[in-house]
Amino acid sequence: MAPAENLAHHLVCAVMAGGSGTRFWPLSTPAQPKQLLKFLGENTLLAETLARVAPLCPAERQLVITNRTLVAAVQADVPQVPAFQVLGEPAARNTLPCMAVAALVAQALDPEAILVLLPADHWVADAQAFRQALLRAAERAATGAIVTLGVAPSHPETGYGYIELGQDLGHGLHQVAQFVEKPNLERALQYLQGGRHLWNGGVFVLRAQRALAAIAQHVPAITQELAPLADLPLGSPDWQAHFEQAFPRCPSISIDYGVMEHESGLEVVRLDAGWSDVGTWHSLLGMRGEGQSNYVKGAAAVQDCEGCVVISTGPTVAALGLRDLAVVATPTATLVLPLERSQDVRSLVAEIQQRGL
Amino acid sequence: MAPAENLAHHLVCAVMAGGSGTRFWPLSTPAQPKQLLKFLGENTLLAETLARVAPLCPAERQLVITNRTLVAAVQADVPQVPAFQVLGEPAARNTLPCMAVAALVAQALDPEAILVLLPADHWVADAQAFRQALLRAAERAATGAIVTLGVAPSHPETGYGYIELGQDLGHGLHQVAQFVEKPNLERALQYLQGGRHLWNGGVFVLRAQRALAAIAQHVPAITQELAPLADLPLGSPDWQAHFEQAFPRCPSISIDYGVMEHESGLEVVRLDAGWSDVGTWHSLLGMRGEGQSNYVKGAAAVQDCEGCVVISTGPTVAALGLRDLAVVATPTATLVLPLERSQDVRSLVAEIQQRGL
Repeated sequence: MAPAENLAHHLVCAVMAGGSGTRFWPLSTPAQPKQLLKFLGENTLLAETLARVAPLCPAERQLVITNRTLVAAVQADVPQVPAFQVLGEPAARNTLPCMAVAALVAQALDPEAILVLLPADHWVADAQAFRQALLRAAERAATGAIVTLGVAPSHPETGYGYIELGQDLGHGLHQVAQFVEKPNLERALQYLQGGRHLWNGGVFVLRAQRALAAIAQHVPAITQELAPLADLPLGSPDWQAHFEQAFPRCPSISIDYGVMEHESGLEVVRLDAGWSDVGTWHSLLGMRGEGQSNYVKGAAAVQDCEGCVVISTGPTVAALGLRDLAVVATPTATLVLPLERSQDVRSLVAEIQQRGL
Repeated sequence: MAPAENLAHHLVCAVMAGGSGTRFWPLSTPAQPKQLLKFLGENTLLAETLARVAPLCPAERQLVITNRTLVAAVQADVPQVPAFQVLGEPAARNTLPCMAVAALVAQALDPEAILVLLPADHWVADAQAFRQALLRAAERAATGAIVTLGVAPSHPETGYGYIELGQDLGHGLHQVAQFVEKPNLERALQYLQGGRHLWNGGVFVLRAQRALAAIAQHVPAITQELAPLADLPLGSPDWQAHFEQAFPRCPSISIDYGVMEHESGLEVVRLDAGWSDVGTWHSLLGMRGEGQSNYVKGAAAVQDCEGCVVISTGPTVAALGLRDLAVVATPTATLVLPLERSQDVRSLVAEIQQRGL
């Protein structure tokens, strides 16, 4: 097996940046979804994701797969990525067709490509530990394995899927016994105490050839539509035209359901790096600075508050004497709710849309 | 004594509308202080105050005394009041010089004027009961008495001054035993249970002649400066010029300290009409509609909230699962704090100014 340094030369990182949704309303909008928000510092989550892997995998070996309406915004956000490696899906088809396109492009860039498929919108505290885990996964992927990252849980989270560990393969690597759906709190506590479950980080590492073979085996309809891309010059009008015609004809199916459930011998690398899927306002609390009582971003005066998320993209926010609340202000909307009810923002947005506010 | 209907012909209502302050930041600003805010319906507190007394005292017998910078805004807000009856104080001199000017103008309008001096920024639920109390006060004022309104307390308020009742004079009228400073909670509870204390409503009813005589007796420096106005045509440039020169030379002193403490035989009419001085965010809760859990104004989606004040003058506010909070959003600022800490808004504003937010 090649040493890690050489493996890194074959990595191609593909970032799935197609998400939209209302969970971060009013900060997120269809034109500026979560992955294009700056939750920390001056960079978007997407830019942070690409920067995190850049020491292993420079921009010319990075892909971003987003939805068509976001291509220009993504290109502006990460101009170092070659423009034709920012792909805009003409229709939403879940994650497996996205993986297929990523694998095809990766293979066009490098016939020996090891594909690292990453969500665009995760937060990692220790980037170095993250890269080490990716290299460990790539070592195994080079031998033909399908490898995923499993995050060491810090609390009994009920919002994530879990990975049950199988045989210990050494050096932080295990076989995957099974993927487990989001648990209830009691079950999540058992997982946390048992030490045999990790959070499903949604990261896959495998050879591009291996990905295409698995898709051809389990969901041949996708291969049938997309395989002709391999014969067209990457970045050419012909490639683009076929992609736009063929992609919407692919079945809509996830990587987990389409491939992973049917594969045996999956492996998982343990990641202990400080991690969040940045899924709710509540999750931002985990990203606050060391010793900070609150997560504060933008123009805000925060006095005597604790456990709060206070964000402004325009108006000056003045918060005093609050506990465990989200206060989010944009020039056009203000949201206030207890962090533990973060997920209920959908019903608020529904009311606002219905009343035309 | 003249019957009430005839008395009403001699009423002149003078509204003191000079207040500014930061208690309603970010809603209130120096250019739009509390009295020019629309807390209920489509009218400002000032316009509501004038409309409330209009059935007794039409616009041509109404005065508004404000500060000079607000004259244009007040004239625009209450265009029915003759423009020269909106007076702009060239400097803040507390309330007694204001009363003196009001009495001089009232007497110029009607030598037999009965002056009703009202704060601009109070809220009254039952306007009819309020007018009946004013008429009762005017009956007594016609005989030479100085009469104030005392509000029947609904709760042990520590933010108001109180009036201790003396001898019962019948029909809701008492002698004033004494004015009492803002009490602590224990004392306020005693007042509430004892039934011998009313809130000081800050309303005075007395003949204009009586007011001028009292001021001449107790604070002759004010009379010396302002009495020459009586010889100048109301609304003339000469009147205005003297007013602007003389007013700033008056001593700064309140009606209570300058006159009322030195007068005996003061009388108080009991007012039981639903009343608030609209002094804090918390006080707005008392103005919410019947059966409403929250006070909501402007574009707001409020779900599962209780005892909250939610106001927007621009951004859409979405509030969910909140208890006893103020959420106030303007296009430039958002305030969130527990209602019980309403008075702490000053320290927030100070921080915002210091940090230049």
